[in-house]
Amino acid sequence: MSLRREELCWYGWGRRDEAVAFPPERAELLLGELARRLGTALEPAPVRCALEELKLPASRVDDTLLDRLREACGREAVHQDVATRAWHAVGRGLPDLLRLRLGELERAPDAVVFPGSEQAVAALLRVADEADCAVVPFGGGTSVIGGVEPLHAERQRAVIALDTTRLDAVVKIDGEGGLATFQAGIDGPALEAALAAHGLTLGHFPQSFEYSTLGGWIATRSSGQQSNGYGSIEDLVVALRMVTPKGVVRTLEVPRAASGPDLNELVLGSEGSLGVIVEATLRVSRAPVCSDDRGMLFPSFRQGVAAAREMVQSGVGLGMLRLADGAETELGLMQRRDPARGFDPAELLFSWLEGRGYGQGRSLFLYGAEGEHARDVKTRVGRARRVGRRHGGFALGRSPGRHWRRERFATPYLRDWLLDRGVAVDTFESAFSWSRIEEAHATVLAALEAAGREHAGGAIAMAHLSHSYLDGACLYFTLLYPLARPLASERVVSQWRAIKRDVTDAIVKAGGTVSHHHGVGVDHREWLPEEKGALGMDLLRAAKSTLDPSGVMNPGKLL
Amino acid sequence: MSLRREELCWYGWGRRDEAVAFPPERAELLLGELARRLGTALEPAPVRCALEELKLPASRVDDTLLDRLREACGREAVHQDVATRAWHAVGRGLPDLLRLRLGELERAPDAVVFPGSEQAVAALLRVADEADCAVVPFGGGTSVIGGVEPLHAERQRAVIALDTTRLDAVVKIDGEGGLATFQAGIDGPALEAALAAHGLTLGHFPQSFEYSTLGGWIATRSSGQQSNGYGSIEDLVVALRMVTPKGVVRTLEVPRAASGPDLNELVLGSEGSLGVIVEATLRVSRAPVCSDDRGMLFPSFRQGVAAAREMVQSGVGLGMLRLADGAETELGLMQRRDPARGFDPAELLFSWLEGRGYGQGRSLFLYGAEGEHARDVKTRVGRARRVGRRHGGFALGRSPGRHWRRERFATPYLRDWLLDRGVAVDTFESAFSWSRIEEAHATVLAALEAAGREHAGGAIAMAHLSHSYLDGACLYFTLLYPLARPLASERVVSQWRAIKRDVTDAIVKAGGTVSHHHGVGVDHREWLPEEKGALGMDLLRAAKSTLDPSGVMNPGKLL
Repeated sequence: MSLRREELCWYGWGRRDEAVAFPPERAELLLGELARRLGTALEPAPVRCALEELKLPASRVDDTLLDRLREACGREAVHQDVATRAWHAVGRGLPDLLRLRLGELERAPDAVVFPGSEQAVAALLRVADEADCAVVPFGGGTSVIGGVEPLHAERQRAVIALDTTRLDAVVKIDGEGGLATFQAGIDGPALEAALAAHGLTLGHFPQSFEYSTLGGWIATRSSGQQSNGYGSIEDLVVALRMVTPKGVVRTLEVPRAASGPDLNELVLGSEGSLGVIVEATLRVSRAPVCSDDRGMLFPSFRQGVAAAREMVQSGVGLGMLRLADGAETELGLMQRRDPARGFDPAELLFSWLEGRGYGQGRSLFLYGAEGEHARDVKTRVGRARRVGRRHGGFALGRSPGRHWRRERFATPYLRDWLLDRGVAVDTFESAFSWSRIEEAHATVLAALEAAGREHAGGAIAMAHLSHSYLDGACLYFTLLYPLARPLASERVVSQWRAIKRDVTDAIVKAGGTVSHHHGVGVDHREWLPEEKGALGMDLLRAAKSTLDPSGVMNPGKLL
Repeated sequence: MSLRREELCWYGWGRRDEAVAFPPERAELLLGELARRLGTALEPAPVRCALEELKLPASRVDDTLLDRLREACGREAVHQDVATRAWHAVGRGLPDLLRLRLGELERAPDAVVFPGSEQAVAALLRVADEADCAVVPFGGGTSVIGGVEPLHAERQRAVIALDTTRLDAVVKIDGEGGLATFQAGIDGPALEAALAAHGLTLGHFPQSFEYSTLGGWIATRSSGQQSNGYGSIEDLVVALRMVTPKGVVRTLEVPRAASGPDLNELVLGSEGSLGVIVEATLRVSRAPVCSDDRGMLFPSFRQGVAAAREMVQSGVGLGMLRLADGAETELGLMQRRDPARGFDPAELLFSWLEGRGYGQGRSLFLYGAEGEHARDVKTRVGRARRVGRRHGGFALGRSPGRHWRRERFATPYLRDWLLDRGVAVDTFESAFSWSRIEEAHATVLAALEAAGREHAGGAIAMAHLSHSYLDGACLYFTLLYPLARPLASERVVSQWRAIKRDVTDAIVKAGGTVSHHHGVGVDHREWLPEEKGALGMDLLRAAKSTLDPSGVMNPGKLL
């Protein structure tokens, strides 16, 4: 098991030793500015108790069932202690962190099982089916949309979390053939390390990369930060195996087929509601030899969007591009401001640029390419820069690119730092056609601000564009708002839900999908029928009835 | 209706005025060589009668039903004449051409309806459902796997061909947004012409491009000759509308989503068995400004495969690459041999190369790139050439590339010319992982030769590689064999079927898919359960039961 939970922060993001630690003066400046903009004094929201002290509902798994689970998966595979149950009770969405922090988990899986083989998974599903239990597949547990919530149907008597992280074997790596097969519980760093030993990469780097698993990426239709270059997870999966209550769904290892509908695509995005993904064969690329990431400043988000579109449509060949809007750009600048530092050349440059048309609304653009040939990478980056300049961009050189690469998995730590100080951070993401992007940006941002005002008395809203395509891009919104007081799980979760509802309504109304890469889970479920249509939902339910007729698999998510 | 059937050849491929017309001396030389290699004298297999003289089974659509069809779709939309029924009785596979040529069509649709709107399609499906009729969606009718065969279930009383070619509107073109929406009955040239007026291209050029429709491409999971650059049809579809007996399935116009399984992918490859695709929104590219297509000769197929793989995996950026094996290369040379031509520099070059390691087994490789920047295209082609040379390739310059671009839609005409002379031509295609390609090439080729010997007394077998991916490629096999005598539909179709069975068995045994881009239809149906697995088939049947519970849609295909 490569993910060691004892090294991780149980109530927040990632590793315990990687929490954000601003120097006091910098923190004070930042908090003062946030309080001013949120229009309220900030009150701390500390973690209330230790992991072991959490009060969980009593387990409904009795000794008979416990014995059967042990028989199916091995004695050491079945856990019922508070820490393990709490770890598997939530994902890493804002309401999850709030409930952990406040020590108020109203639900937890009744048992957590770590099967070590495909056969053990199948045996576990049989036991669960016979014993009327729900099974919640659980990989890295980084879902931010309630994808691992321990729900069950009314007639079911218990919830079993099926932790996949013991299924982490490297099955086969065929570098010449561009293929690699892994068990699905392997996490990002272990997968990339195994490939790196062969000079290969999958090139899939979602923000959760360090803690999420291959199976989770497939189940949620994940997309990585370099998806412009490598594609999203659906472009990388060649074949897979999924254990369902009715048997194993497996697809053929061929690069492409016209043999009817592609069944990989029914598994991609199935969110554990059809079965447990246990193995996948991926198309892998040669590891890049060189990379070049850079920054550019646009006078406005609109100009940056036009440049990004042009870069994608003219086939410049970037691996990553990412455009922060005015608000996100300013927050980024605010964050790096450090009174202890006498002289900051970046700050000087930005204030010089302010007088030259790069003031209010200026938008920071990051772009990068990587590959086998340094000259090629240089050509692509140079071409992007020329396109950017034509759209009014001011080239900022490599320093913002270096900063992005260093920090690209670190942003979620800031959320915990802010939560400690009573500021909630939630994110909302969607994808839109190019022709809708600007209006969607404006209307969803307005909805974020209105929701923040209404449900929290004030908020800071911002967005960036990432993951772009010939025909559109992902917009990723962030909202900061003060937690409702006095602090109680019910109150702050209701506050979150009210905001979530208003914002998702606005996203759907603007023509966006309920999710570009987070998934549906519990949180986006009520908007799904509008997106898929009635017959579309019937199709998904038909797939569910075929593979999981008694509804064992991850109830209450997706469908 | 942009496809004018009166200009087309009813018993063969394409336009009447584009048939192959070799000068007599060249024809004699080619036929002599073929007869020698097939080990038999060639006897002609002429077309037996005129289109109007074809004997078709009497139509089972009575006047009451006829009235209802007219009511649903308009009086002028319903046809029952021999010519129209015969046109819609078959596709363009070898058994189709044999039955047409011999004037022995044992089946034909009982009526052909040309609905002019989505509403008319829906009304037609309602009438068919109520009247217990099967409906066979029919676009260009170029299926080579029995995809438009007018079959019906036992309890059904008639078959209605639903011709989509009146649904050929350009709905919307948004060049800046990289999106274009068409009705699905539009054919390739009309679609590309509409895009070209905006400086755009879809970049989807299957060999049937001139005669096939957008709906057909989607229904069969088509792949074009430049799929290396633009992707296959599944990469190009953003959203679509499909009319089913239970209503309309429609997907959202967003560039990408993580909102559960992608339902476009259930429609892609559905082969008319779930419903009628009536509209699709596509991501389109800027039309290339320049292109460069070239040839290279490898000493062996093995070396060519290694070069092709290297080009794809090192990200050279070709739009097209295509490698003929030794047999296909020699047949190509044989075809161009012209006794009337005193001096052929290409022939001289090839015989010079023979003494320099490019003899027996030499393999012709075609490769090309296109784009917005001439320098970029040049760089990509140059890089490919360097990779090729490292693998023993001899650069042949632009002339083979020009020939490919000129002739790329013309190969099927040769099939009719050969059929006229009693030589059957069939093609078989699959896709394999790189690690299986060479063995698959050898074993399937051996199976082709054995099947030709056993069922036809002799054969010429060859193959080429095309449509390549990081993890594998398509192998496309061609078999020439003498038709069984005396000529009778039953005999030559049985002969074809026996060969098809042996070859498909070999393809599946070698680890290939039943089809890379032709589809399943009737012809590959019996091998599908092995590819999809029992649960996979259950999933497809569940989709069918959901959308078409009474089995109106294209019975006997795919499922």
